[in-house]
Parts: sequence; structure tokens; C-alpha cells
Amino acid sequence: MAKEITPRTDDYSQWYIDVVKKAQLAENSAVRGCMVIKPYGFAIWEKMRDQLDRMFKETGHVNAYFPLFIPKSFLSKEAEHVEGFAKECAVVTHHRLMNDPEGSGLIVDPTSKLEEELIVRPTSETMIWNTYRDWIKSYRDLPLLINQWANVVRWEMRTRLFLRTTEFLWQEGHTAHATRQEAVEEALKMQAVYAQFAEEYMAMPVIQGAKTPNERFAGAEDTLTIEALMQDGKALQAGTSHFLGQNFARAFDVMFLNEDNQQELVWATSWGVSTRLVGGLIMTHSDDEGLVVPPKLAPTQVVIVPIPKPSPEFGEVAEKIMRALRDKGISVMYDQDMKNRPGFKFAEYEMRGIPVRIAFGARDLENNQLEVARRDTKEKTAVPIDGIAGYVENLLDEIQKNLFNRAKDYRDSHITRVDTMDDFKQVLKEKGGFLSAHWDGTTETELKIKEMTKATIRCIPNDAEQEDGVCILTGKPSTQRVLFAMAY
Amino acid sequence: MAKEITPRTDDYSQWYIDVVKKAQLAENSAVRGCMVIKPYGFAIWEKMRDQLDRMFKETGHVNAYFPLFIPKSFLSKEAEHVEGFAKECAVVTHHRLMNDPEGSGLIVDPTSKLEEELIVRPTSETMIWNTYRDWIKSYRDLPLLINQWANVVRWEMRTRLFLRTTEFLWQEGHTAHATRQEAVEEALKMQAVYAQFAEEYMAMPVIQGAKTPNERFAGAEDTLTIEALMQDGKALQAGTSHFLGQNFARAFDVMFLNEDNQQELVWATSWGVSTRLVGGLIMTHSDDEGLVVPPKLAPTQVVIVPIPKPSPEFGEVAEKIMRALRDKGISVMYDQDMKNRPGFKFAEYEMRGIPVRIAFGARDLENNQLEVARRDTKEKTAVPIDGIAGYVENLLDEIQKNLFNRAKDYRDSHITRVDTMDDFKQVLKEKGGFLSAHWDGTTETELKIKEMTKATIRCIPNDAEQEDGVCILTGKPSTQRVLFAMAY
Repeated sequence: MAKEITPRTDDYSQWYIDVVKKAQLAENSAVRGCMVIKPYGFAIWEKMRDQLDRMFKETGHVNAYFPLFIPKSFLSKEAEHVEGFAKECAVVTHHRLMNDPEGSGLIVDPTSKLEEELIVRPTSETMIWNTYRDWIKSYRDLPLLINQWANVVRWEMRTRLFLRTTEFLWQEGHTAHATRQEAVEEALKMQAVYAQFAEEYMAMPVIQGAKTPNERFAGAEDTLTIEALMQDGKALQAGTSHFLGQNFARAFDVMFLNEDNQQELVWATSWGVSTRLVGGLIMTHSDDEGLVVPPKLAPTQVVIVPIPKPSPEFGEVAEKIMRALRDKGISVMYDQDMKNRPGFKFAEYEMRGIPVRIAFGARDLENNQLEVARRDTKEKTAVPIDGIAGYVENLLDEIQKNLFNRAKDYRDSHITRVDTMDDFKQVLKEKGGFLSAHWDGTTETELKIKEMTKATIRCIPNDAEQEDGVCILTGKPSTQRVLFAMAY
Repeated sequence: MAKEITPRTDDYSQWYIDVVKKAQLAENSAVRGCMVIKPYGFAIWEKMRDQLDRMFKETGHVNAYFPLFIPKSFLSKEAEHVEGFAKECAVVTHHRLMNDPEGSGLIVDPTSKLEEELIVRPTSETMIWNTYRDWIKSYRDLPLLINQWANVVRWEMRTRLFLRTTEFLWQEGHTAHATRQEAVEEALKMQAVYAQFAEEYMAMPVIQGAKTPNERFAGAEDTLTIEALMQDGKALQAGTSHFLGQNFARAFDVMFLNEDNQQELVWATSWGVSTRLVGGLIMTHSDDEGLVVPPKLAPTQVVIVPIPKPSPEFGEVAEKIMRALRDKGISVMYDQDMKNRPGFKFAEYEMRGIPVRIAFGARDLENNQLEVARRDTKEKTAVPIDGIAGYVENLLDEIQKNLFNRAKDYRDSHITRVDTMDDFKQVLKEKGGFLSAHWDGTTETELKIKEMTKATIRCIPNDAEQEDGVCILTGKPSTQRVLFAMAY
């Protein structure tokens, strides 16, 4: 199996597709750009979703559900928003099919044309703010801290499994506040929640920053982002949190009576992460043998493989180990397949990225020991049976940390300070990664650099130091560096 | 607040709408027939979903995700299926909007017409069996036991919050098997899982049975159902499990190599429950004071209300109680509102159906006791502070049981054996509920009775006794009674 994966150095894009396919994470469907998320891929997404959901609830948010369809007229209400989202979307125009009276099969019934077309939601600000109008009357109704887990559709021209698909799964938080300050803080808080999730659970280091006006969400006053770096030196926008100002309240006429008895427009944020994170997870850790999943998100953390094959005696040993591991909250499975050989199985479990493999045969049991292999480094160690659960528990922690540190070392060594356009181009071409450079702050310069190099400004880091310098393109004065990169 | 609920005896339909609205469960959206599920309603659905998901996983199923859109041509492949679902569905015909060059605003871009229309899934058999064709090659690939949690759309003409909406949330299980026997057993197993969930968690007694051919799912060889009885004497189909035979395998050419090395068509089941269950929950237990939620599905099981209002001292007592309850896994909240009076709060929490209310004032604390009120019977008891957690734990169990028994008594007393059409009509009119009657087994008779009375055959109970009799309409011989009812 593993041999069928294209090495990363040969063709990184093909390697990614191979891993997604061979690890049975997802596949393309019969509908252009829409994927089927296979059970193993979905199990990873479920782990992510459940943890994020816990973090949202711990920060005071509740879930709700809003309609899939958005009336066309809603999209027009926020001028920038419509520019960003109306262009490529799925439009429902009819509500019935019929048998063609001329015998050509099933056709759209022309009499079922809708009075107003419905758009399959590309994001739900418009529907939700239209609803909030009835929910918010007074400052006592605020803040409103609501999240929804949903599918959304954006008619993408070029799609790639998990990273960019026509339909994807995501969560979208939509909060309403009485003051600008509170909304700004909410947007920052959720950026921090995303960063914590990415680093602690996905073991994926991220840079927190703000998007430039040109890269903002359509309708936002400020877009905060977490940006990760993939192994090919390209950046991935992994989550965004938007301060929307009063734009949607204005568009949908959402006013509240403030403590001074004055009518005021409501302040808003929205924030989202999607199944794109699964793509980021794959590209951050996986290798030429297949998927690597951090223990905290692995649907199965440990697999036990008897050598050369299962037997009743081996089964008893495995049962004992499984009980000890499960008592510590570790998920484990026992390979009971009689047909395939150990070497095949080892390759298969490496492909699926199971963090720890325990193997044993008759000789191991005589010596009261087990062979423990870790997926991240592929090291094998002989471990006494007694105390195996404690050993594995520590090892899972160690793997989680190692994956993060490894990714962080790579990321940190791929942030390069450049001070001229020549250096910029050379580093971009030869090394990739983030380029930390001075920029004059104009969209014009940003777009020129993009046109010249295809690199975009990924973010203005939250922790950027103030430093006098000159724009690499125009030589105009600048007070801080921003991060450029090629991006997914 | 409670006064605004229409009593059940005055107008049951309006009572239902009032409860849904006043308990803040859901509301109609700007899109015809689509609802907004509000945070409290969604929290109840989440509890249901999480428990069902555990039960599906315990019975060996895994989750996956299939596309929202189904190519029009897929629907035509299974002849009965298309009759059942193509009629009223949301049809996506274009993928872009544009600004009208003549200035009338946002219009559908005529150049973005899709080559083949896409249907927003009304159910996913067609998409999933088209996918299974590539997943199933040999008996070793079987069984395939997959579930998906998703939104679906059926263009309903008359909608009612939770009970029948254009878009709804559900789960749909789709399993593939090597033998007829195994698929039949799977369909029965999932019917039993649904019944267990309905009775143990929703405290809603159900009758397990089979649908008549006329009431079967479009494309099924057999449809199993769980049928509940609402307080107005109308039945609610709460979940269905279908034995699909080889119909979808045939339509999508899904063959497998059996153990004898022969190509054979795959056997199938599908099964689903939806947000309709929330409607069933409401109508089974709630009363003229508002919602009643069984403890096992209550987002908040206990509320603590200080009398007359919060104080630092009361806060300390509440903290202690909350810790003790949470240690037992009981969810609890403390009402810290300073403005509203206790009576208002009591009515509010009754409206929301919180199973247990604990109230206390200074005098109660002097006496080392608390006032505990249960939502189901509205009884109040003085309970010593020491041991309150154990008391509440038992009380929650007691409430759960009482709700089930109460609903079961009602249901059992509303199954009436009738042997003539006159009795049938009279009981249907005066008492409602299930009518247990002999039927000659023909669709013709079934439809005639429906035309005459609006009652339908809800099911042929799994445990129906063999009994010789004659059809109430035609006088033809019959060997068992079936259950008729008016239904949602």
C-alpha cells in the first residue's frame, strides 16, 4: 500500500491526494466539487468538532440552527457582502420535477418557479441578522452568543479535497453586542480559542494576526486570522474571526434600546472554521508512509497487532492491555484479522496514522514484554507488560508534544526577514514559508506584489514589533513588518 | 407568561404553537416552511442526537458525510423512489448571480445554467448507493454500516414547526449486506433501537410495527415504524426503518463477489429519525403551563431560585448545592436575576419544562431545608439540605418513570378494539387514539377507509396476535388486527 503514495519531494499535491485517498479520508463525489467524507475522515472531523464545541460552550456560546436557504434579496442588503458571495453560489429556482410529457424523462416543472430565488447559504450573516432583528430589543437581550454547525456551499472553480470544496462543513459563530469594545474583544477571544485549538489539539502552530483590508471578509471591519504553514512552505488560513462593526445591524435594521434609553445599532462578530482544518492537519504532520494524526484527535490512539496472527492466548493478553488502556481513557483496537501478514498490517496502520502500535509474539510474552512503535518517529521500544498503560499514556503525550515541536521548528525556520524585492523573490522561490517584510500599507502595493510573485499578505501579526523600515516595493516608510506567503 | 398559552382543550394546535414559541424552542424563518431552531430547542435536539449517536455506535455503525446535492438523473434510477420524492423538492438550476445590466438589482446569471439540475437531497439513498458501487467489491467489504447526520429538504405544502418543515435535521442510516436475512435483521434492530430511545429517553411509549404496502417508503420492500400517540389522540410516526431489498443495488449496479465467487446484488436498509422527534416530545408530555422535558433529555435538569432574590449568602448555599448535584452528573443552574419576582421566575421555568426547581429563603435555611418542586406533577416538598443531591437524583429518576407511565397509561387507554365501521367512526370522533380493527389486507380498502374517515393504518404491530375476524369495511376474512388512527 504505502508504496502507492507519491513522495512529497516528487509531487506534494499528488502526495496529498494519495494520503487522503489511501488513508480513506475522503473522495470526490458524482457532484462537481462536492466530497464524500468517508468514515475515517469523518471520525477525525468529529473529534475536532466535539473539542471545538466544548471550547465554544466554555466561553459562553450556545448552538442554534438557521435555514439552509437565503432569499436572494437578503444578499443584496450588505453591499460588500453581496460582492463577496453572490458571484458563485447555488441558486434554487424551482420546487418541483415532473415527467416530460414529450417523454424525455424527468424535467423541471416550469410552473414551480419560485417567486424569489433562494441561495444555498455560502455563510449565514444575512439570514441570522434578519432573525436577530426580532430577538434584540434592549441591552438586556445582549450579548447574544450563538454558534451553528452547518453545511455551506460556495461554487468554487478549483476544488481540492478538504481544502476547498463546493460544499463543506463548518461552524459559524454570530454574536451581537451592545458596544464596539465588547464585539472587538469577542473577535479577539475567538481568534485565541482557534489558536489554542490548533496548537493544543491539532499540534499545528499558528500565527495570529489581522488581515489587510484587501483580504478581509466581505462585510467585515476587521478580519482576524490564524495562519499555519504546510510542509511545502505554503500558508494555510485555518480560521477567521471577524469584527463586523454595525454593518449587518444597519443592513437588517437591528437596533436596541441602550441603558440610556437611546436606540442604537447592534455590534457584531462572526467566526468560523471548517473541514478545511482536516486538510491542514494532514499537510502539517503526515509523511511518505501516510497519515500522521496527533493523539488528541486520533479516533483510535493505539492498535494491538499479534505476531504472526491472532490466537485465543494472544486474545487474552490483548484484552488485558485494552482494559488497562481504556481505564486511562485511551482508545484502542485489537487487530483480529487472520489473513494479512504483520508487515502488511504495520504499513496499513502507519498509513492511517494510528499514533501507537503495540505488537507482540510468543517470545515477547515469554520475556513479559511488548514492542511499542510510535508513528511520529517510527521508533520501536521493548516495554515490560506491567505498566504498559502508564508507558503508553506518557508516550501519547510525548507524541503530541513532539508533533507540535517538529511543526513549530519547521515553521519558525521558515519565517525569513527580507528587505528587498530581490531577496523576497529569491526566498519565495528557493525556500518558501513566511516572508517578514515591510509594506507601505496600501492595497495597490499589496496587489502589485501579488501580481509579481503570487504571494499574498497572510497577516499583520498581533504581536508585530514596531520597527521603522521601508516598503520592499515602493520604498515608502513602514512601521512594522507583515507576513507574506504563497497560500492555499 | 403562562397565561399566554392557549389551553389544550380550547385549541390543541394553537397550544402546540404557543408552547414552541413561549418555551423559545423554534420559530418560522423568512423562508417559507423553514424553521429557525432556537438555542433552547437546539439544546434538546443535541441531547437527543448525542444519545442516538451513542446507540448507533454501540450497534456497530460509523458516521460519514455525503453531498447535499443529488444529480437529477440519480432520482430517476429507482422507479418508485422518484415517484415518492421528485415531486416536491428544491431544484438548483444555476450557479451565479449578477447585477442586472438594466439596473433591476441582483439577478440569476443566465450563462451559469447547470448542464444537469441538482436536487437538494430529500433523502440520500441514490447518492449513497451510487457511492457504494465503488466501495463494495466482495463479501469482505460487507456489511457496511454507515450513518449520516444531515439536513434534508422536502418541499412541503403545509408545514408545522418541528413536525413537518421544508428543511429538517435528521440522521439517515444506510447499510449494505451480503444476505437478505442480515438486512432484514438490521432493519428490525434499528427499529428496536429507535423504540428503546423513544421509551427510555423521551419517555414516549411507542408501538413497533410494519407499514402497509401503501404507506411504505418509496423504494422499500418493507417499512418498519415506531408510532406514538399524542395527547389529542392523533398518532405520530416517530421513526422508520426500511428493508430496501436489492432495489437500490439494482438501480445503481452495486454487485459483490460472494463466498462462492458469484456476482450478486447487495441487500440494503435505511432508517431515520428527525427533528420531528422534538415535536413528539413536546406533544407527549407538555401541559397548559408549558413545556415538560423528561430529565434524561433536559438541557438543564435543576434550577435553583433564591427567595426573594439573590444575595451573597444565598449564593454560597447555591454553590454548595450545585457542587453536590454536579458530582452526581446532574446539570443545574442558579438564577441570579435581581429584577424579576419569584412567582414570575417559577412560571418561566415551568414554561421551559425544567424538571426540578429548588427554592429557598432565609427561613428555609434556618430550618436547614429547601423547597423542591417537580415539574411533572407540580408537587412541592420540603427537603433537608443534607442529602439534597441524593434526593434530587432519585426524584429525576422518578420523574422520568412517571412521565413514561403517564404517557403509557394514556396511550394504552386509547387503543380501542372496534369491529364495525359504525363503531370505528364513533370512537374516532369521540375518543380518538388507535383503533384496533380487522382489515382485508388490500390497499383499496385502506384508501376507502381513509377517504371516509381520514384515518390511516399506522401499522401492523410486530406483536399482533393471530385472530380470525372480518374486515370492518368489506367483511372479507382477516387474520389479525391492525392499528388505525388520525395522524400528524
